[in-house]
Amino acid sequence: MLLLPSHEPLVASVRGDTVESVHYGSVAVTDDTGRLLRFAGDASAPMYTRSALKPPQALPFVLDGGPRHFGFGQREVALMCASHSGEERHLAAVASILTRIGCSPDDLRCGTHMPVYYAACGLPPPAQIELTALHHNCSGKHAGFLAYCRLHGLLTENYLDPAHPLQQRIAALAAEMAGASTPRGTDGCGAPNYALPLPALARFYARLAAEREGAAGAAFAMLFEAMTGDPEMVSGLCRADAALMRIAPGDWVAKGAAEGVQAIGIRSRRLGIAIKISDGSATALRVATAAVLLQLALVTQDRLPPD
Amino acid sequence: MLLLPSHEPLVASVRGDTVESVHYGSVAVTDDTGRLLRFAGDASAPMYTRSALKPPQALPFVLDGGPRHFGFGQREVALMCASHSGEERHLAAVASILTRIGCSPDDLRCGTHMPVYYAACGLPPPAQIELTALHHNCSGKHAGFLAYCRLHGLLTENYLDPAHPLQQRIAALAAEMAGASTPRGTDGCGAPNYALPLPALARFYARLAAEREGAAGAAFAMLFEAMTGDPEMVSGLCRADAALMRIAPGDWVAKGAAEGVQAIGIRSRRLGIAIKISDGSATALRVATAAVLLQLALVTQDRLPPD
Repeated sequence: MLLLPSHEPLVASVRGDTVESVHYGSVAVTDDTGRLLRFAGDASAPMYTRSALKPPQALPFVLDGGPRHFGFGQREVALMCASHSGEERHLAAVASILTRIGCSPDDLRCGTHMPVYYAACGLPPPAQIELTALHHNCSGKHAGFLAYCRLHGLLTENYLDPAHPLQQRIAALAAEMAGASTPRGTDGCGAPNYALPLPALARFYARLAAEREGAAGAAFAMLFEAMTGDPEMVSGLCRADAALMRIAPGDWVAKGAAEGVQAIGIRSRRLGIAIKISDGSATALRVATAAVLLQLALVTQDRLPPD
Repeated sequence: MLLLPSHEPLVASVRGDTVESVHYGSVAVTDDTGRLLRFAGDASAPMYTRSALKPPQALPFVLDGGPRHFGFGQREVALMCASHSGEERHLAAVASILTRIGCSPDDLRCGTHMPVYYAACGLPPPAQIELTALHHNCSGKHAGFLAYCRLHGLLTENYLDPAHPLQQRIAALAAEMAGASTPRGTDGCGAPNYALPLPALARFYARLAAEREGAAGAAFAMLFEAMTGDPEMVSGLCRADAALMRIAPGDWVAKGAAEGVQAIGIRSRRLGIAIKISDGSATALRVATAAVLLQLALVTQDRLPPD
């Protein structure tokens, strides 16, 4: 018997003066020590983190000095945390990472899909396009995985295998974040993914934004500065994450994910926010995110990006 | 304060061995007398019927002898109940209705949208298309509204006004179906729409399928035979409703609607089924519909259409 989270109604759409549709979900707000400050729905059931796991997935490479070793700057580190739109700059930067670690796009195991750019900006896709693994929104993360393998002289062919040393390290990190065993599933790009209670995800983003002590703090700082320094490099044009980060430049780090997940870290408040829309609706997620930011008085209505 | 329905979890998607996403909703199964045989979630909150209201919306025209008056056959009656795909046959048949009642596409107040056909069949839309009101999936319903006006010598310009005699009659019918006052909203096509408790919607579809006594029975028979006689005329190629009706030809009438609504009438069992997915997901609706049909032993797994 599969356990269901105890979500609660978060977003309702109204027709006439009667509710038509309701989106359920959960929210957790913590500080960087993990103290649960506010929540709605389920604060203990593990929920898949999907692309919100990308900064933790890049953390081992950063902790081990990978960027300095290969001479990577903010652009490359941002891409390792990115669900990018497959714009030219993203493709070029991922290709550049691969070249500098002695790999090629053929080494990426993420598969491909139509670049997110077209749907994000409401544009028709081109009639002709030659898709490569670089276009996959996770290609930067996968390039980061390969860079970790090169840094440590590990096999690259099996870098997505849950038994691979890199994936074992990420699994241990996820378990440490959760303070418990973490359900594992395979993400859309083939990488192992982990389900965490929302407070654990919120706490990670609070630490990413605010923790600056010791080796972990230095790694968090590098990831945070890369992500917030060029919001379109970790997402793209017309994307919600870029719009969120541009509300409070250098203070908010935002990472949305598939199936209705949003994580936000607020540096000035040492806060983390994690939201899951039960049904995965991206539209409901945007409404819930705005409502949470308004209720926490982190933003006023007039400063929210237009829909 | 808006009231929220008390939906319950109906459909879960699983990643690894853990639930990732959950769709909430409600289900009601009744017989043609309205006896509630099975339900899940909320059996009393009004829920917008959207396009599942089309057969009741066509009922006044049929009850008043409109089809015979204008010489309309099954094809035209089916279109009045249709959320059609905007295929050539649909456009031609709606145009033919309009010609025969002395109206033109300019009299339709439904607006337009890209024909459903392309998305339904997974095809790219054409680079060039001249959209008219005929392409709107509700154009047959609107043509039926105009035909009712012509039949009774009513003004056509304001046929969508809730105060128009036709809309007043539909409102009374909806209230009769609900046995209570019915919240009103404006549908995507501009027509007044009503929210009914799911058992009331289920009962209507049971009557549509099974009631054959008196004038109402004759009208139900005409609507049912039109809808089931050519399932693609009330929907289109690659559409779920057509697939459902083709499982049990002449026995099942199926009408899906926006925001996660499905109504089904089963003639041989005098049963009606109404389903609402809280978040409006069409994918979850298909899963829930299959599960309901399986649980009612109305179908076996191998007879369900492939996804």
